[in-house]
Amino acid sequence: MRFFSDNAAAAHPAVIDAIAASNRLDTAYDGDAYSARLDAAFSALFETEVRALWVTTGTAANCLALAALCPPHGAILCHRDAHIENDEAGAPAFYTHGAKLMLVDGPGAKMTPDAVAAAADGIRPDVHQVQPKALSITNATEYGLAYRAAEVAALGELAKGRKLGFHMDGARFANAIASTGESPADVTWRAGVDALSFGFVKNGGLNAEALILFKPELADEVAVRRKRAGHLLSKGRMLAAQILALLEDDLWLANARAANAAAQALAGAAPDRLVYPVEANEIFLRMTADEAAGLRAQGFDFYDWGVGEIRLVTSWDQDGAAVAEFAQAIAAL
Amino acid sequence: MRFFSDNAAAAHPAVIDAIAASNRLDTAYDGDAYSARLDAAFSALFETEVRALWVTTGTAANCLALAALCPPHGAILCHRDAHIENDEAGAPAFYTHGAKLMLVDGPGAKMTPDAVAAAADGIRPDVHQVQPKALSITNATEYGLAYRAAEVAALGELAKGRKLGFHMDGARFANAIASTGESPADVTWRAGVDALSFGFVKNGGLNAEALILFKPELADEVAVRRKRAGHLLSKGRMLAAQILALLEDDLWLANARAANAAAQALAGAAPDRLVYPVEANEIFLRMTADEAAGLRAQGFDFYDWGVGEIRLVTSWDQDGAAVAEFAQAIAAL
Amino acid sequence: MRFFSDNAAAAHPAVIDAIAASNRLDTAYDGDAYSARLDAAFSALFETEVRALWVTTGTAANCLALAALCPPHGAILCHRDAHIENDEAGAPAFYTHGAKLMLVDGPGAKMTPDAVAAAADGIRPDVHQVQPKALSITNATEYGLAYRAAEVAALGELAKGRKLGFHMDGARFANAIASTGESPADVTWRAGVDALSFGFVKNGGLNAEALILFKPELADEVAVRRKRAGHLLSKGRMLAAQILALLEDDLWLANARAANAAAQALAGAAPDRLVYPVEANEIFLRMTADEAAGLRAQGFDFYDWGVGEIRLVTSWDQDGAAVAEFAQAIAAL
Amino acid sequence: MRFFSDNAAAAHPAVIDAIAASNRLDTAYDGDAYSARLDAAFSALFETEVRALWVTTGTAANCLALAALCPPHGAILCHRDAHIENDEAGAPAFYTHGAKLMLVDGPGAKMTPDAVAAAADGIRPDVHQVQPKALSITNATEYGLAYRAAEVAALGELAKGRKLGFHMDGARFANAIASTGESPADVTWRAGVDALSFGFVKNGGLNAEALILFKPELADEVAVRRKRAGHLLSKGRMLAAQILALLEDDLWLANARAANAAAQALAGAAPDRLVYPVEANEIFLRMTADEAAGLRAQGFDFYDWGVGEIRLVTSWDQDGAAVAEFAQAIAAL
Repeated sequence: MRFFSDNAAAAHPAVIDAIAASNRLDTAYDGDAYSARLDAAFSALFETEVRALWVTTGTAANCLALAALCPPHGAILCHRDAHIENDEAGAPAFYTHGAKLMLVDGPGAKMTPDAVAAAADGIRPDVHQVQPKALSITNATEYGLAYRAAEVAALGELAKGRKLGFHMDGARFANAIASTGESPADVTWRAGVDALSFGFVKNGGLNAEALILFKPELADEVAVRRKRAGHLLSKGRMLAAQILALLEDDLWLANARAANAAAQALAGAAPDRLVYPVEANEIFLRMTADEAAGLRAQGFDFYDWGVGEIRLVTSWDQDGAAVAEFAQAIAAL
Repeated sequence: MRFFSDNAAAAHPAVIDAIAASNRLDTAYDGDAYSARLDAAFSALFETEVRALWVTTGTAANCLALAALCPPHGAILCHRDAHIENDEAGAPAFYTHGAKLMLVDGPGAKMTPDAVAAAADGIRPDVHQVQPKALSITNATEYGLAYRAAEVAALGELAKGRKLGFHMDGARFANAIASTGESPADVTWRAGVDALSFGFVKNGGLNAEALILFKPELADEVAVRRKRAGHLLSKGRMLAAQILALLEDDLWLANARAANAAAQALAGAAPDRLVYPVEANEIFLRMTADEAAGLRAQGFDFYDWGVGEIRLVTSWDQDGAAVAEFAQAIAAL
Repeated sequence: MRFFSDNAAAAHPAVIDAIAASNRLDTAYDGDAYSARLDAAFSALFETEVRALWVTTGTAANCLALAALCPPHGAILCHRDAHIENDEAGAPAFYTHGAKLMLVDGPGAKMTPDAVAAAADGIRPDVHQVQPKALSITNATEYGLAYRAAEVAALGELAKGRKLGFHMDGARFANAIASTGESPADVTWRAGVDALSFGFVKNGGLNAEALILFKPELADEVAVRRKRAGHLLSKGRMLAAQILALLEDDLWLANARAANAAAQALAGAAPDRLVYPVEANEIFLRMTADEAAGLRAQGFDFYDWGVGEIRLVTSWDQDGAAVAEFAQAIAAL
Repeated sequence: MRFFSDNAAAAHPAVIDAIAASNRLDTAYDGDAYSARLDAAFSALFETEVRALWVTTGTAANCLALAALCPPHGAILCHRDAHIENDEAGAPAFYTHGAKLMLVDGPGAKMTPDAVAAAADGIRPDVHQVQPKALSITNATEYGLAYRAAEVAALGELAKGRKLGFHMDGARFANAIASTGESPADVTWRAGVDALSFGFVKNGGLNAEALILFKPELADEVAVRRKRAGHLLSKGRMLAAQILALLEDDLWLANARAANAAAQALAGAAPDRLVYPVEANEIFLRMTADEAAGLRAQGFDFYDWGVGEIRLVTSWDQDGAAVAEFAQAIAAL
């Protein structure tokens, strides 16, 4: 009964089937018939013309986007708890050739225009200090909060006014969309987002993520950078096939709803323990070490989060009975 | 009837089965049970203690190895026709932070100690010129020649004497081994090789390559660089499972033998047209544009190679009847 | 009557004379007779064998040192107010190929072992987070505090225990030594420092700084990196000659003492306004905007430092009468 | 009697005087009164609006220009014998973050449109190969040939047609202009050049070169990169003052004419030995080892250039009597 990560869950059977079905000789790299369908599929989903490139990891998606949006001598405004700051081994610096992450605070890993502006305004506009050139937010955030379109649009306006590229790390974009019910278009390009890392791996995919470029003119350069980073797989059809399988009949949304529902069930068991509102598939609970040990003794697996807190993450395939059992166990503490 | 690349062939059914079989919740990244078996599996194959890391592309394997063997301010001696020089979009410069490729000539993309020494000796040992720090060879070469262990050992001696790291790009290592019958150990570490990019994707794999480190002490740094390059997949088990499936009962060797046999069948059809001896699964033939057009009209697909030459590549799953038909068509020219 | 920076002061006449005196045909780069004397001169000063390389800026000295001490995928622990973090336009990231600055707090821009350890301990020792590989301190600090040898030694012990390279930014090293009276050796290599950026430009030099390597084995690589960064001047003799002129008869120390004395005179005029103890040649004073305007109206030039503070910097050539006048004006507020 | 390099000659007395004269407190970096005059001075010389930045080395000038004209994933077309390829320790790769030098052949280190086009056309326009993005020529070339304006214009047309940035390494630009008598404007921006490294150090300067940007819009980014590379000297006034001194009354041109005249005197002594026409201040002569030894025994100092050739370089301050004596000694062989 594992609740430690959606990262390590199984892939959806439809994804495995799609891989098997695409397993035949085809043109290499992204010249195949599956990859050729991605632009249209995502353009339909986002109601505008986009370019979509597959990659195998969210780190690669994030960093290819950031490299396209920020020069080596620029800075990327992001939250202090952002994945790009804490969990990507410095990959943003590698891909951008040394751009700086300029850290912004805010509860629940969420950024506001005021906080971003304050950070940017702390920089003297001279050659001695690294100047902000891009903004990156995570949606849903690292603490499971979902941005509303209006919130993103406020940040997008700031970005536009300051000529900042605007990137959204959507490792859990599906969970955010499933949570708010807002349209993918409203939360992204209509709100000023230039590039989105659209995560599938945590949501039923095996190893395919999509990098969505709302500025199609960026695509050629990003494609070169992808190859240069060793991320142009020769049998790329199997990545495209996974993504197409998850887009089919909105399977990605169904998966995210399932994960979110499991999270709500757990959250409902302990409303007083919640550190943040539960708006996606992550639950942070205040809990003593003894209580956590007690739950683990009952067979529940999860991460501690600092001292006095635990993190639970639910997946698309979370077993309903286990969730109910876990919720009961938490409520019984 | 396609003979244009082993890159785009299907994966072996055992590989697809292995992916499906490994599709369950497990520890993320390379903490899973499959990944844990790689070191031992390759240590057995190479008869010495090695560290083995999965990656998804040969470019990533090559460049992670080169970054571990050459500083940013050093040069890598390689053949003018090397894949790292011509077909990786500058990825070696990206991964090494600007190391230089120092080009060496030689027939069939093969390097000799004399040619390497001459290139290295052309460099003044001062701070104004980039100094050689590593040597990289491709086996089988880009023109389908297989190095013998003694040839590699002669290069290895040179590398040791000049304190050069020694890398082997083995995108078609299986084909080389299947061709010479020499042991993997003799052709690599016993001959002085420090790191091997062991290719599986062209040989029945789907998207897993192995980077073999004969100096285990390099592994920790390479693992960090892999993550930093966005190449640490969260469901890495599916990569390890592929490799294990191909190592099982020497399936990798059987696949390579099948591809090589098809190549021999084609080579035998036109011995006078061969540009290079056929020692792996690539065949380069002298052929007029008219002749090539004639073959294409009969349904055979392949690449032109400059003017007056064509390149054929055979795969593990090449259809025997199609090979025979193609051989006959070539012989009939 | 300018008190805004030692950066923009005149060079000492002895330095100009040395440049003129060295102006003749000699071997290029650092092969000349002047450059050849640097190692011995600094080895004598530091009472141990060192290698010394001239460069033209403190930024270059700092970053060449950091690149030698920290890999691209590592982190450098430094103070949040460090010059390398705030005033070098991201040069550390450029030279190290993307290493991260890991920020530490502490009053007066001074770092303590406890604060450094706490920052380092916040990093999980896995491949997902950038691992600390080096420590950099500034002496005198950006707020004019001088480290004592014992304080540096405590940090050096921590660095050794954690296998961190240890760099000292000594843009105002002379002022620190002049202030504490401790020996250059005690404050550096005997306390564990591996590399020192020894500043001369702010202290009577024109455009020569010295990078002192207490690990002589680092020198060859640093020399290559210096050339690769375009910092190997062809008439390097004029840089070496400057430094030698300032080392002669301890002119560097006399200059620093003069600047420090001027700072003490100003500090003594307003002990209640001091934000930090004055231990070098920088004075930070609490002051209202009106007061500052009043001083400026009297002809005194200096920087505001945020809101409610000003920064004064004295130089080796600060006019005694102007200092007295300024001290009086401040006291009169 | 040294003829080995103009790199190591003395600075002109006017330059030393200018340094001394500018030695007073002024605004730091390039905010001073001298630096402020550079744009106008070079705009006048080039008869168009330019931006001019001082740097201390030709390597820095070249590489800052190349970094502004070529992305990390692009290639720079240059001659196989170019200084940027052979004598800058990989600095172009460092500054551009890994751009590739794509080598072109041609006698006397001179490039023609045909040779450049052939090299560029050898590249497949796909993501697997590094695409040409810039062109760099050296004028006068590394073998002492001066480009005519029409030759540069032909290359400029090619560059424009292929959207290549166009850089000229003018370490000996003065010698080229003095040789052809063509106008600086005609040989540069009117011929399509985007950026010029205008050398002063080999021509009477001490350590100041000028980077001339014919696209003023590049200047802000280049200024940031200069700082980021540690090349923004705090007392930059002394660099600007040198350059202004050499521009005054066309001293740069007089110096170059003197060096060229000395070269002609030597060339005239051995017309049959010349490897290349002498069009600047470098002379390459066929000469046996015995002959060279004989000249050295008479006190003449110079470099061997491979086997059977020697290189002589004359400077602005070459002693007329020594030149005559050397010419006689060569003629007497």
